[in-house]
Amino acid sequence: MIKVFTNRKDFDHYRNSLESKSVGLVPTMGNLHKGHISLIEQSVADNDVTIVTIFVNPKQFGPTEDFDKYPRTLDDDLAKISAVALLIVATKDIVVYAPRTNDGIYPEGFSTNISISGVTSKLEGAIRTTHFDGVSTVVYRLFAITKPHIAYFGQKDFQQCLVIKKMVKDLDLPFKIKVMPIIRNSEGLALSSRNQYLSESERVEAMKLPTTLQKIEKLIKTKQDYKSFIAENLQDKRWDYLEVLDAENLETPGDKTHDYVVIAAYRLGTTRLLDNIVVTVKG
Amino acid sequence: MIKVFTNRKDFDHYRNSLESKSVGLVPTMGNLHKGHISLIEQSVADNDVTIVTIFVNPKQFGPTEDFDKYPRTLDDDLAKISAVALLIVATKDIVVYAPRTNDGIYPEGFSTNISISGVTSKLEGAIRTTHFDGVSTVVYRLFAITKPHIAYFGQKDFQQCLVIKKMVKDLDLPFKIKVMPIIRNSEGLALSSRNQYLSESERVEAMKLPTTLQKIEKLIKTKQDYKSFIAENLQDKRWDYLEVLDAENLETPGDKTHDYVVIAAYRLGTTRLLDNIVVTVKG
Repeated sequence: MIKVFTNRKDFDHYRNSLESKSVGLVPTMGNLHKGHISLIEQSVADNDVTIVTIFVNPKQFGPTEDFDKYPRTLDDDLAKISAVALLIVATKDIVVYAPRTNDGIYPEGFSTNISISGVTSKLEGAIRTTHFDGVSTVVYRLFAITKPHIAYFGQKDFQQCLVIKKMVKDLDLPFKIKVMPIIRNSEGLALSSRNQYLSESERVEAMKLPTTLQKIEKLIKTKQDYKSFIAENLQDKRWDYLEVLDAENLETPGDKTHDYVVIAAYRLGTTRLLDNIVVTVKG
Repeated sequence: MIKVFTNRKDFDHYRNSLESKSVGLVPTMGNLHKGHISLIEQSVADNDVTIVTIFVNPKQFGPTEDFDKYPRTLDDDLAKISAVALLIVATKDIVVYAPRTNDGIYPEGFSTNISISGVTSKLEGAIRTTHFDGVSTVVYRLFAITKPHIAYFGQKDFQQCLVIKKMVKDLDLPFKIKVMPIIRNSEGLALSSRNQYLSESERVEAMKLPTTLQKIEKLIKTKQDYKSFIAENLQDKRWDYLEVLDAENLETPGDKTHDYVVIAAYRLGTTRLLDNIVVTVKG
């Protein structure tokens, strides 16, 4: 059985009752898929209590983005979390905090913005200029409310993970961040809530994204020229970006780079798909 | 005897050794006067340990402002704090954290900005557009490093006090903020590090600031028309602003206003003097 809270007061009361139990946080916008489930399972393995938050955060959507049409599927989400909860030992708990309104997350008259510069300046940050401010600010609020020991994020949102790690470092937040691997379908497409927007033919075209990243991964590993391969690929105007960067800081790779990230956004109709692969090169 | 730390590691070691002792924070940019001393004395009265930070924060100065010429008077400051320490009971401590470089406050590669909107949009915030971002961000860092139970600020920087209280609320920071009254010289001029920039004749002209505020205070208390008095006064172009606002939120006073703030900035040569009076009107 899972506990579900929709009210801040009730949730706070519950959180305060946990005392010294270890707490993991899995922040989500709902519409859960196996990627989210893998975060929940890792948190259950690591902690006494796992808090899954479900909140579609208006602040991280731009004015022309899909906030209104973002899928809200609370009943389905609770069923999926309950299925996980059935399989865990009796000493562990999974609770869901799914506030129905913004005041479940933001205090009355909230007017603070937390903005990380540098790592937000390119890729998603260059295209969605206020997105990461919305992300860092809501994640701060989720941390403040749930007070986790460890928070779990998916590598699929690679730049988001760097932004959150930077915020945690810059603000001395007492939380550990664990980044979990991308979960893919049997063909290799990274799972995403946005995949359901794809038509049958777009699903086929979408395979261009993981296959291109894999090819670049191979070129890096075998020390072949990936730059001209990327330049050729960028003739296809559906790439919003397709880049190889230093995975630590998203700078142009240099002599000190050991971990590369091959990272891309690919547009199919009005749907933007994200994917990335981290490549570690030794010596 | 006071303890003085200039190195982050040494200070952290000391802070961790305090365990459950109650800690008060008095954040300053040095160049201490009796206004600062009153904050230190209140903190000593309230807490086991008082931490005075001395750090001239570059982030809160605009590009054309007086960061370089801001007076650094560490020896004098330590002498003044020592004089206070001589008079306190042996169970109480005063320590000074005065880092010599920015990395004593900001972690390496720091790139986070904390910005409060609303209350920062007028008065000082309208004139010094990045000032309050610098203030809220450095105060956050000072909180993170010193982990106080109570932090002390002077009412002279009235808008700054509102900004910090808003940040503490919005970010659920576990610190209490105490705002202490303005300390004035025998003529009534609010003490400020910037007063020393004034020439003899400017010191005389500066009295226009507190006397005007007092007159407006009287007009409010006796329910007379203060608006035309302000309008007349604003003929004098040395006022950067001279306003009566709701002291809770700096909005235009309305039916719900009980506490008014009469608040002004007055320019004498290149020096800007700030002052304010809070007026409570009953019924």
